[in-house]
Amino acid sequence: ERGRYAAPGEDQLALFLNARRRTGVDGAQPGTGTRAPGLWQLHDTFILAQTGTGLAVIDQHSAHERILYEALLAAFELESPAAQELVFPRTYTLGPSEWLAWEENAGLLARLGFRLEPFGDRTLALHAVPDLGPRFHPEDSFPQLLQDLANGAVPGASQHHRIASALACRGAIKAGQPLAPEEMDRLCSDLFATDLPAADVHGRPAIIQIRLEDLARRFDRG
Amino acid sequence: ERGRYAAPGEDQLALFLNARRRTGVDGAQPGTGTRAPGLWQLHDTFILAQTGTGLAVIDQHSAHERILYEALLAAFELESPAAQELVFPRTYTLGPSEWLAWEENAGLLARLGFRLEPFGDRTLALHAVPDLGPRFHPEDSFPQLLQDLANGAVPGASQHHRIASALACRGAIKAGQPLAPEEMDRLCSDLFATDLPAADVHGRPAIIQIRLEDLARRFDRG
Repeated sequence: ERGRYAAPGEDQLALFLNARRRTGVDGAQPGTGTRAPGLWQLHDTFILAQTGTGLAVIDQHSAHERILYEALLAAFELESPAAQELVFPRTYTLGPSEWLAWEENAGLLARLGFRLEPFGDRTLALHAVPDLGPRFHPEDSFPQLLQDLANGAVPGASQHHRIASALACRGAIKAGQPLAPEEMDRLCSDLFATDLPAADVHGRPAIIQIRLEDLARRFDRG
Repeated sequence: ERGRYAAPGEDQLALFLNARRRTGVDGAQPGTGTRAPGLWQLHDTFILAQTGTGLAVIDQHSAHERILYEALLAAFELESPAAQELVFPRTYTLGPSEWLAWEENAGLLARLGFRLEPFGDRTLALHAVPDLGPRFHPEDSFPQLLQDLANGAVPGASQHHRIASALACRGAIKAGQPLAPEEMDRLCSDLFATDLPAADVHGRPAIIQIRLEDLARRFDRG
């Protein structure tokens, strides 16, 4: 069953180059506009891309998750990570275990760019969040993050990894969200700039390949 | 292995409706332009289309072959099938068996819209050909058609079927030919107007389906 789709690898470069060509990074586009390989969104869930040997299918959630995960880990290393001031501070009233999770992780969250203030009786006011692009809204997933940390259900080599992983998973673009062509371009470019583009933070594939020869075989032309 | 891709059927209607929606046949397009399901050409060989349950992959050659085959069979029934006058008549010098094949099939070829005149010493001048759209150039495949008929290699229930089959196979759009979006639209609409859209003239699939649940399984999300 696995053999039906090749693991990414030799083809990733081709995909990346296609994405660069489309965005004009490498200069002029070939003359025949309609022939340029594109990025296509399928069911608002997968991004399809023509590669040198066939078709790559990218799970948009897994891809964004991987991008956010690595960006959050990198943010821990920064002097002052990019933060986004919220126009209207959000307040959260927490359960006892979530409050405990916040107290335990307040320092690490601050290092990511979260600016939080206790606001009486297990309530927090959130004033700023890590800024990792227009599609990432950590203020929406903040209570889920605390739940995940309170549950201890997030695996990770360290608390840094656990926070990055939980926040990436909760905050990433979901299946069913339509993306503009430029957003797909950006997502693919960012994905291929990560250390491990082929896998999401849970170790599941972020990309599968469907080779032309597999398609030809399905058409009884193999 | 077959189970990986569902046979077309329940989903064909969805595909057809998508195609109609795109071409505006059914009226207004939904407001969100980027969400409209599209038709995408992969490696200038396959047409990809979003369907209700996943992705349909259409072999452009098989699809055009099926369309031409049924149109040619229908042309035999017409009083005066659509013919295209050639601006510059083409001449062909034939081998003995091809010449024989022409003599045997001259009546049927004429009924399709071929207008041929002997031009001395096993040479034919071709003045008009069946007119089945801008992508069909029977004058190019005419000598191959006579070869196929001379070889007796083309199966078919009758000589009508054999001629339609050989001419469709030789004259259909090939793999590697880029298509404009309107051409893909037209090809899909025409395919779904045939009696047997799911199969080419050799009984091979013209369409395969890749279901969302199959993709999800490949991403270990099934």
